[in-house]
This record gives sequence, structure tokens and C-alpha cells, in this order.
Amino acid sequence: MTGARRIYLDNAATTRPLPAVVDAIARAQLELFGNPSSQHAFGPPARKALDDAREFLRGTLGAARLVFTSGGSEADQLGIVGSAAARPPGRVLMAQSDHPALLQCQGLLARWRHHVTALPVTAHGDLAPETLFDALGQDVRVVALLHGHNELGTLCQLGELVELVRRTAPSAHVHVDLVQTYGKLPFDLDELDVDSVAVSGHKFHGPRGAGFLALSSTAELAPLLLAGGQEGGLRGGTENTPGAIGMMVAADAALSHQAETAAHTEALAARVFERVQEALPDAVRLGHPTRRLPHILSLRLPGIVGQTVMERCDDRGVAFSIGSACHGGDDHGPGNPVLAAIGLDRHAAREVVRLSFCRDTTAADADTAARILVEEALRLRDLAPRGAGQR
Amino acid sequence: MTGARRIYLDNAATTRPLPAVVDAIARAQLELFGNPSSQHAFGPPARKALDDAREFLRGTLGAARLVFTSGGSEADQLGIVGSAAARPPGRVLMAQSDHPALLQCQGLLARWRHHVTALPVTAHGDLAPETLFDALGQDVRVVALLHGHNELGTLCQLGELVELVRRTAPSAHVHVDLVQTYGKLPFDLDELDVDSVAVSGHKFHGPRGAGFLALSSTAELAPLLLAGGQEGGLRGGTENTPGAIGMMVAADAALSHQAETAAHTEALAARVFERVQEALPDAVRLGHPTRRLPHILSLRLPGIVGQTVMERCDDRGVAFSIGSACHGGDDHGPGNPVLAAIGLDRHAAREVVRLSFCRDTTAADADTAARILVEEALRLRDLAPRGAGQR
Repeated sequence: MTGARRIYLDNAATTRPLPAVVDAIARAQLELFGNPSSQHAFGPPARKALDDAREFLRGTLGAARLVFTSGGSEADQLGIVGSAAARPPGRVLMAQSDHPALLQCQGLLARWRHHVTALPVTAHGDLAPETLFDALGQDVRVVALLHGHNELGTLCQLGELVELVRRTAPSAHVHVDLVQTYGKLPFDLDELDVDSVAVSGHKFHGPRGAGFLALSSTAELAPLLLAGGQEGGLRGGTENTPGAIGMMVAADAALSHQAETAAHTEALAARVFERVQEALPDAVRLGHPTRRLPHILSLRLPGIVGQTVMERCDDRGVAFSIGSACHGGDDHGPGNPVLAAIGLDRHAAREVVRLSFCRDTTAADADTAARILVEEALRLRDLAPRGAGQR
Repeated sequence: MTGARRIYLDNAATTRPLPAVVDAIARAQLELFGNPSSQHAFGPPARKALDDAREFLRGTLGAARLVFTSGGSEADQLGIVGSAAARPPGRVLMAQSDHPALLQCQGLLARWRHHVTALPVTAHGDLAPETLFDALGQDVRVVALLHGHNELGTLCQLGELVELVRRTAPSAHVHVDLVQTYGKLPFDLDELDVDSVAVSGHKFHGPRGAGFLALSSTAELAPLLLAGGQEGGLRGGTENTPGAIGMMVAADAALSHQAETAAHTEALAARVFERVQEALPDAVRLGHPTRRLPHILSLRLPGIVGQTVMERCDDRGVAFSIGSACHGGDDHGPGNPVLAAIGLDRHAAREVVRLSFCRDTTAADADTAARILVEEALRLRDLAPRGAGQR
């Protein structure tokens, strides 16, 4: 594709930083370059800017404390492993369909003699309260929940799940991965009685390599990276002042338009699905039918290989994915573990594509994307040998 | 101080990023925002830029591989704990005067049943080969060395130390903290037979929140943060493409002028010390007399409280430190552990200041700084009650 503007529909993988974010970061790099720990004149302005960003971001979540990290994955690890490390050995609960940033904590957790139980999920990629209930017990130290699923869009039943934990394992730490949700839906840590949430800057038009863990007043956590004792002793390393400021600017913009953006992206997703279903009546929207993130459209297109239709649409200037970028190129090697967890076999899992929208996506973009997706899907279906993909 | 330009002499704590670095980061944020793992058109350019930066930086050190991290502290932790985690329980050697990013690995190392031995150093903050030799044995799994000392400027006797390790504990991993050295002195990992080195972007006029661990071809390492399996499985989390590019630009600039910058900063340090010694003949330059980083001047000013003279010079527009920003405000609470390790008692340790120069520091800056430091030091000495500070 040359000439026309490319349409980017992979906002769940990463987003384009806002120009205001890029400007704020550039300014901070030059004007607030001092080490926040320095005692001379270059230190305090950097310290103040860092703490102002911390205070702003903390306030957006009703959190008591906030620890800056290098991103969402590190924040998840600190929330899960850090809280487990502050507790006696026991069990850590998560779901089989969780993001690898959660599931891959298993190795480190074993070092504190914690055992991970990955719970089965429904066909919507939903952790059923009864499944959690059956797994809960006094030996559960941490429950890690993915608030909005990055591939399926399903929002977990957070209120019910947290209540179950509080009733059955009151001393357990409840960590929530908020990476896809933050900036897109309101969230109040205090109200929901959650202990920690992980946020990633680059998922809401903020900077790459920056994230944070927001904490309740009572959350108990052991640091995993100590170094110079920065971040109240919870995360060492010279603070990334520009990254923190960039996240503040991005969060401010996202939250100022949160409801409109949610309505906008939700309408776009519905519109694209409608167009696809008109042409391909057997297309299925994955994830929970009502309880879901507004910006993610996960589709199964029976008889169509997702990889192929994705590549053809990409050639025509429409970029979307076939799942999380975090499975790397292996989505269709050993099989996508998320799709396996919701009960799709390897063949069906190959038929899935994910489109994810943002505030800047226009209705025209969505229409173009739907048209091209449909054209390419129909072309591939016509090309398929008779009976193939019908199964 | 108002009006005149402030003089920044704390380049060992952090440096001002080059305008070219800031520009390259801004451009990369907007133009290469795609997730490097994405398979559509937005992925490969980001992947290529990331790998080009990796290749460039790898080449500057004669390394075989390079893992991007969130900074020097994380790179030290990955080099030390990651290599220990890939080995059977045993001992990890470091020095008592090391940076907290090294020493604080102790807690995590204990999780793999490794025991840290922190070796004593000379009055120059130097790990004597015979001290290392005495501590070496078949049970040593990792030896962590600080190449250039961040407070004292001393360069360790790397060649001799590595040779001792290779002779006595051939399977041990040799990790070197190169945070103060990188970009300032040539270094060849392969030639020096080192397994891993840690580098921090913001110490050589590069970005904050970005660093890397460069590795030999044979280094064995277990990852500490897995997440999506990025960085060849050695470090998870969506890659910080702009940070990697920023480091490449900063490294290119530093290496293009390495010898001149080293000569320039060395001359400035010598010039300031000369001026100080003329006025305060009992002033002592700490660290090794010849084997040292060019840009760091660590001074003991007998009878002068470092904190006070630092504050007064800061009021007059000259910013320097009284030690590592990584000890936070506690330098003179529990006592600076580095100065204790080189045998200074708490009283003497309070008399230390550190000035650190960069390529942009002018001779006029150095002269102004020396003049103001001397004036304030003499004023404080005159103010001191007779006999005070003479000890």
C-alpha cells in the first residue's frame, strides 16, 4: 500500500503517543533532567514534577500510593510476586486465559515457595465466581485478576470476585491487571477494595517503557529491585521523570474524554462487526456479549485463516492483529493459549482476528476496514477448496 | 542565584540528554510507535529500529548479545541474579564499596540460595587482586565488579581480577557494572573476557529509564521478568524502541569524542583540584591516584562540612554533590557506606564533596566552580570555632 494513510486498528497492542505527551517528555528531558535525589538546585524541581505526576495518577484511581515501574509487565510482577514475597508460602490464583505478564510470574513465585493455580475460564474467557470460590482457601496469598482481557475484551466480574476473596481468604492480596482498562473505563481501587493495580503507559497514548503499580493504603509488598531505595524502597533505579510526566499528560487527556471515547470505540466495534456479519453470517464475536472493554473486537471468521486475512488487509493499508503481540510469532505455532483456554481447538483458533480502536479512529476508518476485511475474507473463502473450513 | 547560568557538576548522578537524543526519541515515539512484535506494517519498522540500535550498541562493546532493560540497576540485577539463578547455589563476590545496585542484589540472590561475600577494599576504594584471590574458590558462581567507582572515580584492576577468576573459578560468571565508564573509556567485553556488563542510558547524555545488559556469546542467564518473552526470552515487556534509539544516538555522540572528552574532563578535574589545593593545602583527592575515571573529582576538605559547602555553592549557582544520589538524603544519617568502606570515620566522611564533569563543562565553568568552592570553604573554616574540624 502506498499513498493513502494507513489505518491502525491494533490499539490493544500499543498506541501512538499523543503529540502533547511527546512534547511534555521532550521538555522534561531537557528542563527537568536532574536526578530527583540530588540535593542541589537541579534535584527538587525534578522531584516535585515526579511527585506531582505520582499524585495526579494516584488520584485517578483512588489509590493511596503509587510506584513507578518500567511498564505494565514489571508492575504486574511487583504486584503479584512482591505481595507474595511479603507473605508465607501458599497459593497464588490466576486464570488460564491471563496475559503472560501474570502467568509467567510462576517461576519467580516458586522462589518464595508459592504455587500458582491457573483456573479454567468460560467460553467468554471469564473467570466464573464459582470457579474462584472452589479454589479459594486459607492458603491463598494472592489473587491476580485481569480486569479487561487483552485479546477477547471480556471484563471480569471484579466486584463479585473481590468479595469472594475477602470472605474466604481475607489476608490475600488482590492484584488487578488494569493495562487494557486504564483510561478507558472508570476504576476506583479503594471502592473496589483492591490492593494493587498495574498500568502501562503505552496502552493509553502515553510513553513506552513506563508504567506504574497503584496501591491501597494497607497493601503489603516486598520490593524486587532495590538498588538505591527509590520509590519509597519499593523500586530502585534513578526515576524516569519524563516517563512519569508523559503518563500524567496521557492520563489527563484520556480521562477528560473517557466516556465519549468509550462510546465512540464501542460504536465503531459494533459497526465493524455488523458489516462483517452482513457479509459473513457465521462470523462470531468472541468474549463476553455485554461485559466487555469498549475498544476491542475479537472475531472468529469460520473458514478463514486469520493470519492470511490479516496479511492481505495489511497489504491494503489496514493493520490489525490475530491476537496479542505478546505471544510473539508463535500464535499459531504451539497454539494461542488464550484461545485454547476458551475451548477453541487449534483449527478454530487460527480463524481469529482482533481489531482494536482508539479515540482517533474515525467512522470512515472503521468502514474502510470493514469493507476491506469483508472483501478479503470473501476472496479467501472463494479460493478455499470446497468443504474446507466448513468443518 | 538568579540571572547567570547555573553550573552543573553532578554528571555522575545524571546527565542532561543531548538535544539530538531528545529529537530522536520524539521522532521514534511518533513514527516508530508500533509494537515490534506486531506482524502488520507497523511492527517491522519498529523491530528493525530496535535491532539496529541493539546491533550498534552491542558493537560498541565487543559483545555478542544485548538485552535492553529499564536502566543500569535492572541490568546489574539481571547480570548478577540472572547468572546466579542459572547456576547451583554458591557464593557471589562483590566489594563493600560497590554501588547499591550491586549490593542490594543480596536479597534476591538468597532466593536461589546464593550467599554474598562483600569484600573489603583499599583506602582508594580498590578491590585488591589478593583480596579477591583469597575469597575465590570452586563454590563462587558470580563475581560482580564495579568498573569505575561512582563516588571515588577509582577504576578497578579489571584485567587482573578477571584473570584470577578464570584461573580459580573458571565456571563463574563475571559481571561488570559499566554505568560510569560507558562512553567515557574504551571497553571490549570480548577482549577482557567478561560475561556481562550493565549500562545506563542517562549517564552518557542518553534517556532516563533505559539501559542494557551486554553479554558474551557464552554467558548463561535466567530471566527475572518473563512476561511476553521479549528480548530473546531474557526480559519481558513491550520493548522501549524510543529509549533504545536514544541510547544509540547518545552512544554514537559519546564515542565519536571519547578521547577528547576524557582528556577535557580529566584536565578540568585536575585544574579544580589544583585551585582547591592552593587555597586549602590539606584538601585530599580521594580514589586511586592514577587509575581513575576522567570525569570524577572526589575531595575531602578537612574541617569543612561537605553538606554545608555544597549548599552554599548551590546558592551561588554551582551544583555538585556530597556522594551518590543513590544513598538518598541519608549520606550523613547512618553514614555513607562507601566512605566507611575506604576507612573514613563518620566525621571525615562528612568532609567529602564530589564534582563530576562532562564534555559541555567549560574551563570557565570549572574556574568559577573552583573559585566559589574555595571562597565558601574558607568562609566556613573562618566561621568554625577554633580547633573545630582540626581533629
